[in-house]
Parts: sequence; structure tokens; C-alpha cells
Amino acid sequence: MALDALKTRRRSDYKFELEYRTRWSDNDMYSHLNNSVYYFLFDSIVNTYLIRHCALDPPTSPHIGLVVHSHCDYLAPIGFPAVVDLALRVNKLGKSSVTYEIAVFERGHDDARAVGEFVHVFVDRNSRKPGLQGMADNLKDGLNKLMVERAKL
Amino acid sequence: MALDALKTRRRSDYKFELEYRTRWSDNDMYSHLNNSVYYFLFDSIVNTYLIRHCALDPPTSPHIGLVVHSHCDYLAPIGFPAVVDLALRVNKLGKSSVTYEIAVFERGHDDARAVGEFVHVFVDRNSRKPGLQGMADNLKDGLNKLMVERAKL
Amino acid sequence: MALDALKTRRRSDYKFELEYRTRWSDNDMYSHLNNSVYYFLFDSIVNTYLIRHCALDPPTSPHIGLVVHSHCDYLAPIGFPAVVDLALRVNKLGKSSVTYEIAVFERGHDDARAVGEFVHVFVDRNSRKPGLQGMADNLKDGLNKLMVERAKL
Amino acid sequence: MALDALKTRRRSDYKFELEYRTRWSDNDMYSHLNNSVYYFLFDSIVNTYLIRHCALDPPTSPHIGLVVHSHCDYLAPIGFPAVVDLALRVNKLGKSSVTYEIAVFERGHDDARAVGEFVHVFVDRNSRKPGLQGMADNLKDGLNKLMVERAKL
Repeated sequence: MALDALKTRRRSDYKFELEYRTRWSDNDMYSHLNNSVYYFLFDSIVNTYLIRHCALDPPTSPHIGLVVHSHCDYLAPIGFPAVVDLALRVNKLGKSSVTYEIAVFERGHDDARAVGEFVHVFVDRNSRKPGLQGMADNLKDGLNKLMVERAKL
Repeated sequence: MALDALKTRRRSDYKFELEYRTRWSDNDMYSHLNNSVYYFLFDSIVNTYLIRHCALDPPTSPHIGLVVHSHCDYLAPIGFPAVVDLALRVNKLGKSSVTYEIAVFERGHDDARAVGEFVHVFVDRNSRKPGLQGMADNLKDGLNKLMVERAKL
Repeated sequence: MALDALKTRRRSDYKFELEYRTRWSDNDMYSHLNNSVYYFLFDSIVNTYLIRHCALDPPTSPHIGLVVHSHCDYLAPIGFPAVVDLALRVNKLGKSSVTYEIAVFERGHDDARAVGEFVHVFVDRNSRKPGLQGMADNLKDGLNKLMVERAKL
Repeated sequence: MALDALKTRRRSDYKFELEYRTRWSDNDMYSHLNNSVYYFLFDSIVNTYLIRHCALDPPTSPHIGLVVHSHCDYLAPIGFPAVVDLALRVNKLGKSSVTYEIAVFERGHDDARAVGEFVHVFVDRNSRKPGLQGMADNLKDGLNKLMVERAKL
């Protein structure tokens, strides 16, 4: 994605939001959120959506999502004890895989502080390989609701 | 503290509260919050209070709080994506040190899931030794407001 | 445990050792290992021992260890990129529970930087209650090898 | 970078190596290293190199490195208590910025489990903007030693 496009992202470009309070330990020696912490937040909004809206039960579900790729662009720093709004959408939905886009906003500010994507491949929990039929219907149906129109990309 | 006393702790036994959303990575292989994660939460509510109500600025304040002791009793498990209410009080306030008590409640439940204490010694940021005059007034005044009456212990 | 006793702990007071490299994110805004990070290290040496020497397989073993209490005394700071030596012993071994003591040494120094204990209760993985027979023999046998003589306490 | 190229990465494709022991909490509910943990490891090898070989002192150096972009491809899982070898090289070195490539190998295996890149922009610690002269010489000289020949890319 072009960096210029990411800089114009607003909350209204996303389909699901969750507020997260930052933690003391999120800040590193430079007194701002460490770059790795954003990925913990990405994982948290995505899995909350999967559990609450796609019937995923991580310890028992037959299909689980494994991350095969992730990336993030950091546009501006955030520091503890800020409260952040995470915003989620689906950019691409395949047979077994899904590409999420997540933006991190700081409470009270319109522009995104960071925008990233990651790709889940849904696999059989035991074989850890994608099923012949692709991801389970509960996953596909729930993720479909987060899809954005091509024109908005 | 006696374990029986901790089991009867309620939100009303505390002076400052903060809601925290759990993260995907807080759960360990046993699908519940890892014991170490509670200490990250303790640090987060204490430092939020120090920053918001005691004028602490971690990168520049002349006095900073170093942890010299911590402990926690785990009464019942919590699992992502639960939302928790952290509750804070001060059990002991000395010249340079303070003993916090923190309880972790799960949204929608009255009994504490975990209760712990930790001790901050406020030191000069450069020498890392307590000052002759003890902690700065802004810290002492703010912490004093979280003190519980002896009779409630 | 008396703080004076902890200050004299040496590597030779322990039965099992593991070297750990610190991480950038272990340091907090005060440029030293955050207090919570020590508990992550405690968990790591204990579970490495359980997996390597007590046949524990976290995703499948019938008995798993849940932490019901933990505490730590911080004697001196450590900063990234230091290498630490973790040292483990068992202070108490009951029917279903075990009390570990862990010390954190910095490479090249004799005195412990931090000493803590934590208590595992071994429970049935499904019911999450201790078994009538107590912990499995593989656990008891392995942990017994880490027991220190009373006289050394 | 093409995924096929990443799959053929070997330790010999890198210039600096560091061994890291995984931690209990690195594993998530799916019993393998969480995707976010890899970025903590990336940060750790890069900053160890900057501190040890480029005279960086994070709490005081006039120039500090801020991450503006990061990405990672996950090729195969790793599980605690595995020991990993991190391997580092520099793919691009600009006036104020540097692109690192880091691979994660599992002890005893030749193929990389994950390969990622991240970009540091070196900025003045107070203004948080790049200096007119670009990064300090100590940084440039040290990073230059990690550069790979174009032909190897």
C-alpha cells in the first residue's frame, strides 16, 4: 500500500473498532510504544472479532488461523498511558486465507498513528494444513462482513 | 496478607479503578492469562495514577519509583478476550516508599481474580538512591489519597 | 524469606541453571529490566525443566501446573543487552504442589540481582482440580532432584 | 522480497549472529511462538549490534533509531523451549535510514523459520527529526560492516 494512502486513513474507513488502554511496559527506552507492541494489538482485535463474531474457540475449534505474513507502517508515535482505538477491516478474502488491515488511532485524534496488514491462513488444528474446502463457513461469513469495497482501497 | 481476607476483596475496598482489555498474547498455552501478565497490569494502573494524579513524568521527573518487592495471589483464572477492572489502594506510605495493593476483577463479577502488592522506593533519577527528604510532595500528596484506614485491612 | 539471606545467594545454592539473553523490550522507560519481566524468566526456567526433565508436554499432558502464588525481591538492576543466568531449586514439594525458588544472576557477577518463589499446583488439565493421587510420578521424581536440604535454607 | 528467495536463506547469508532462548510466554494458545514475538527478537539483535558495535547508548546518545516500517514472512513454526539463532544483515544504508534483514533459525536446522526487514530512521533524540548531516559516523561505520553485496540479494 502506498504510504500516502495510509496517511489519509480515518476511523470511517474501517468496519470494527475496539478501544485498548496502553500498558506501562508498552513503552520502550525511548518512551513511546515499541514497534512490536502494535502487532500484539493487531492480534488482539482480530482474534476478538473471530471469537465474538465468527464463533472461533481457540482451544477447540477445528480451524485455527496461522499468521504467514505481517507488516506495519508507523506514522506517528504513541506513548503510555494513551488510550488507542483499533480499527479493523478485511482487504482480501480467499478460500483459506484472509488479509486484515488494522489501524491504530489515538483517542482524540483523527489521523492513524500506524497502519498494518496481516494474513491468516486457516488450517486444520491437528494437521496444520488448509482444508480442501477452505475455511469453515462461520469464519467466512463473519469475515465477509468486514470486507471493504474495492473502490475504497 | 491472609488468603481468606483477599478472597473477600470487593471493588469498594479500593480507591482508584481502571478498565483494561486483555490481549491475545496474555493467554499462555493453558488458555488463560499468564501469571506474569498480572504484574504488567499492576505497573500500568500504578503508573497511570502517578502520571495523572501525582505529576510524574517518567522521562524527566527528578524522582522515579523503583520496584523492590512484588507478590501476587491468583484466586481464579481470566481468559482473553475478557475485560478486567483493576483496582488500586495504598496499604502503607513511608518517607520514600509506598506499598500498593492491586486487585484484578473480571467485568461482571464481584470477586477478585487476583490480588497483589508491590513496593515502590522513590529515588533520585540520577543517583538511583532515595533523597534525604524522602519522596517529592506531589507524590506523597497524591498517594495519600489512596490510603486505606487501618481498620479496613 | 529474610532479605539478608537472599542477598547471600550464590549459583551454588541452586540445582539447575539456564542462560538467558535479555531483550530490547525487557527494559522499560527507566532503562532497566522491568519488574514483571523477571516472572516471565521464572516461568521459562521452570517450564523448561518440567518439559526436559519431567516429561511435561504442555499441550497434551494430563497434569498441568497452575501458578497460585508468586513473589520476588529485586536486589539490584539489570539492563539489556545483559546475559543472565537463571538458577532454580525446589524449596518445598507437597502432594500436588511445589514451591520453586529462582535467582537471577548477571553474567560475570556472583551476587543475585533478584530472587523469587512461585507455587505450582498440578491439576487435571480438564477439571483444573488437583488429582486425588497428587501430581504424576514423572513430575514428582523430576522435582525431587531439585530439592534442597532443609539445613541450607 | 520474493518468498522463494527467503526460503533459501541460510546462516551464511548474514553478517552477525546471536543466539536467543525462547520463553514460556512466547508461545500463544496454539503452542508456537506468537507472530509478534519475532519483532521483539528483531529489535533485540539490531539494538545489541548498535550498542556493542556502533557505540549506541540508548538513554544518552544524540541519535536514536526509530522504526518506521517492519514486515515479516513466517515460513515454519517454532515452539518454546527451542533455542533460536538470529541472523542480521543490512540490505540498504541511506543517509539517515537503514534497512535491516533478520532471519530466525532454529538450533540444529539449516532453513530459516522466519525472515523479516525493518527500517530505522536515525533522529535527533530531542527533536525526533533526522539531522541535516544524516546519521552519526559511529552508526554509519558500524552498519556498513553488515552490508551485503547487491549480487547476493
